[in-house]
Amino acid sequence: MDNKLVKEITSMEEDFTKWYTDIVKKADLIDYSSVKGCMIFRPYGFAIWENIRNILDARFKELGHENVSMPLFIPESLLQKEKDHVAGFAPEVAWVTHGGGEKLTERLCVRPTSEVLFCEHYKNIIESYRDLPKLYNQWCNVVRWEKTTRPFLRNLEFHWQEGHTMHETEEDAREETLRMLHVYNDFYRDSLAIPAIIGKKTEKEKFAGAIDTYTVEPMMHNGFALQGGTSHYFGDGFAKAFDITFTDRNNKLQHPHQTSWGVSTRMIGAIIMTHGDDSGLVLPPAIAPIQVVILPIAMHKAGVLEKAAELKERLKTSFRVKLDDSDNSPGWKFSEYEMKGVPLRLEIGPRDIADGVCVIVRRDNREKTVVKLENLEAEIKRLLAEVHNAMYEKAKKNLEEKTSVAKSYDEFLDIAANKGGFIKAMWCGDPECEAKLKDVTGGVKSRCIPFEEEEITDTCVCCGKKAKHMVVWGRQY
Amino acid sequence: MDNKLVKEITSMEEDFTKWYTDIVKKADLIDYSSVKGCMIFRPYGFAIWENIRNILDARFKELGHENVSMPLFIPESLLQKEKDHVAGFAPEVAWVTHGGGEKLTERLCVRPTSEVLFCEHYKNIIESYRDLPKLYNQWCNVVRWEKTTRPFLRNLEFHWQEGHTMHETEEDAREETLRMLHVYNDFYRDSLAIPAIIGKKTEKEKFAGAIDTYTVEPMMHNGFALQGGTSHYFGDGFAKAFDITFTDRNNKLQHPHQTSWGVSTRMIGAIIMTHGDDSGLVLPPAIAPIQVVILPIAMHKAGVLEKAAELKERLKTSFRVKLDDSDNSPGWKFSEYEMKGVPLRLEIGPRDIADGVCVIVRRDNREKTVVKLENLEAEIKRLLAEVHNAMYEKAKKNLEEKTSVAKSYDEFLDIAANKGGFIKAMWCGDPECEAKLKDVTGGVKSRCIPFEEEEITDTCVCCGKKAKHMVVWGRQY
Repeated sequence: MDNKLVKEITSMEEDFTKWYTDIVKKADLIDYSSVKGCMIFRPYGFAIWENIRNILDARFKELGHENVSMPLFIPESLLQKEKDHVAGFAPEVAWVTHGGGEKLTERLCVRPTSEVLFCEHYKNIIESYRDLPKLYNQWCNVVRWEKTTRPFLRNLEFHWQEGHTMHETEEDAREETLRMLHVYNDFYRDSLAIPAIIGKKTEKEKFAGAIDTYTVEPMMHNGFALQGGTSHYFGDGFAKAFDITFTDRNNKLQHPHQTSWGVSTRMIGAIIMTHGDDSGLVLPPAIAPIQVVILPIAMHKAGVLEKAAELKERLKTSFRVKLDDSDNSPGWKFSEYEMKGVPLRLEIGPRDIADGVCVIVRRDNREKTVVKLENLEAEIKRLLAEVHNAMYEKAKKNLEEKTSVAKSYDEFLDIAANKGGFIKAMWCGDPECEAKLKDVTGGVKSRCIPFEEEEITDTCVCCGKKAKHMVVWGRQY
Repeated sequence: MDNKLVKEITSMEEDFTKWYTDIVKKADLIDYSSVKGCMIFRPYGFAIWENIRNILDARFKELGHENVSMPLFIPESLLQKEKDHVAGFAPEVAWVTHGGGEKLTERLCVRPTSEVLFCEHYKNIIESYRDLPKLYNQWCNVVRWEKTTRPFLRNLEFHWQEGHTMHETEEDAREETLRMLHVYNDFYRDSLAIPAIIGKKTEKEKFAGAIDTYTVEPMMHNGFALQGGTSHYFGDGFAKAFDITFTDRNNKLQHPHQTSWGVSTRMIGAIIMTHGDDSGLVLPPAIAPIQVVILPIAMHKAGVLEKAAELKERLKTSFRVKLDDSDNSPGWKFSEYEMKGVPLRLEIGPRDIADGVCVIVRRDNREKTVVKLENLEAEIKRLLAEVHNAMYEKAKKNLEEKTSVAKSYDEFLDIAANKGGFIKAMWCGDPECEAKLKDVTGGVKSRCIPFEEEEITDTCVCCGKKAKHMVVWGRQY
């Protein structure tokens, strides 16, 4: 029960921030580089991202999206074509001013996002309604010059995917915007075992250049929010700025309607902070680089290593499996794979072999099951599903317990100061009230207007005027 | 026989360079961006790269390599740590000088390759022989500020993989260097149907900072060479410059021995120029985004579209297949998929359906086969293998026909001026002779000292002194 770790980490209760940075280093997810805010993905960290990418990429393709690759650089004049967009991003870009030993005639920014590059290309390739929809996506690295950085959560360079689509009608584009939001929410639930609130961002919080921004907002274990993925409806604003037109079914020239949507390596931060515990990572089976680690017990006894190797060969066609037959102690190995959040640990020793069984221990609750070797695949499959479900339920309980309702201004302030988590409260729609609440609480912001609104009261929690929406509020990473 | 193209391209014989750029645009592989030398991979072009990546990545992982991700930026001081390396790359890098609205205290280069980043990380994580070998790879974008750019062949930004490994001994590292060279050569032969010369680069042509560079050198249809992939043995030079040490099996402090190896999107250029013809691309089946295109004939006749759709559903579990049921004419479709180099075209019309057959046409030689629908999978498999083999044999014939032997200086000059292609000739080992041959021929350089050397004469083709090696020479992209 009380498995002491070889690699010590700070406890969550003591210092959540320190606990987080301990895990990213000690579970071998990342290393720091000599450029502040740029991190190195170590193999275990990158394998998580590869698994995330494989699942999402297959889903995007099922829905008809195609991958492309846009340039890394954006000329300054191109970035400036859409006014709201450049205002949002120009302050946080990196500029290339010299290349090949010469000063450039126009400086180039390293892409912070690629709307303008997609628009420039779409202008070249869209002519008729027959060319629509265009459903493009790219997996790439982007750079945003952040002052304060934190591994996975806020990096100067990060990896992400950005979908950029063009449609004949507003209706089609709005449908795509919500379809992709649900793809993200489904992925959080079904692959990451993370429940989330989904809804629409307020005007103040929407993406630079968008008409509407929708968001997936999971809650971390400490009650903080993380913007987990966003999907934007752009209308034809960019299309007009870039002069993208098509001949419609009535032979009339129109501007297409646009969306964009993205998730990033920040998801790995969400996984750590939603599921992790004081022994380290707890990884959802769907994206765990190792789903089952096989530990031979009393390795020196005849037949143990052979049996363990045989099980590995047998299981590797169905699961991501690792055999650790190193000469580290069993205690070290238990701790190591707990730290790495491997969902199932399979122990096999001489007595198990004699009995035709092995012992499987779940990472999430340390429950042991003795499994007959003849049923091994089915039992592992069942246990992985149970681990996923239990992780989801635990995270859902946390989300529910740390979500409060505030009916008054004082109640809002009291919850913000003393309880934290998400606060459901009514809002008049005025950005001034949003700004005031953020200010007086020292950082509680509107997360979204959720799709599932409740009518708590009929007045704004801030100004007392007539309420327009229920908003979910919270502190964020 | 004489399928006229809807999209016209220049003929290869008339202007090989123009033929090439016509294809990259008209087969929808790329679009140009507003930054000169940075290109946009369109879906069809990027799908080829994804297929290349999937095959190679699986092979790397089989051999125990792990993927990581290093930062995009390298501080100037870090780039300068290994003297030969910085001398080779500094002239062609892009510099970031401003970020987040401020001038940086140290400028950052956009990685042209990542040796120094890997070394900085290896210093942190290698302590003992137990930590070796480290077999890391990354798939990423790199930037080299080229004056003259050409799509796929020479881009300012390009995609590649770079493997960087660390070993206990010189022997292990040298073994890895050659292992990965052969992985590349096997891939060219088995997946791209491209024969190549493999061997060692001369001192003059080796990688900046390497002790030995090995290369895969395929020949393009016009007799030009393309450096298709390189694998480097570094010795412990970088390890010393970066102070990377490990405790060996005798408890002594040692520097590890290093390799690096890479292939890039330039491979797509090699595919185009090895296999393409005057009707467009000819793609090797292993990496073709569409392996079989189904074209319904007399689409308006009852049952044709249904049968074509049924075949698509049936075939898509075994092959990458597309059904084109658009209302474009059959002639347009024939040309379109010839341009795109789809290996097999499957035609099905009312008479075929009545007979329980379809017609399959090979892209490489336009041969038609009537295939019984009951044998369809097996026949497509057989035909794809035949296409691959025929493409390989055709390219091999070209390589052989355009490879000459030069026994004397005059003969060398004559072949260089009048025949082109590869020239096998003896060499004394002096870089002066290499430089002179390049100079007098206007660009014929040593490609490599091939593993399979022949003894043509015993004197250097240039200076007449005693020969050390047979070298393969040629003009390059």
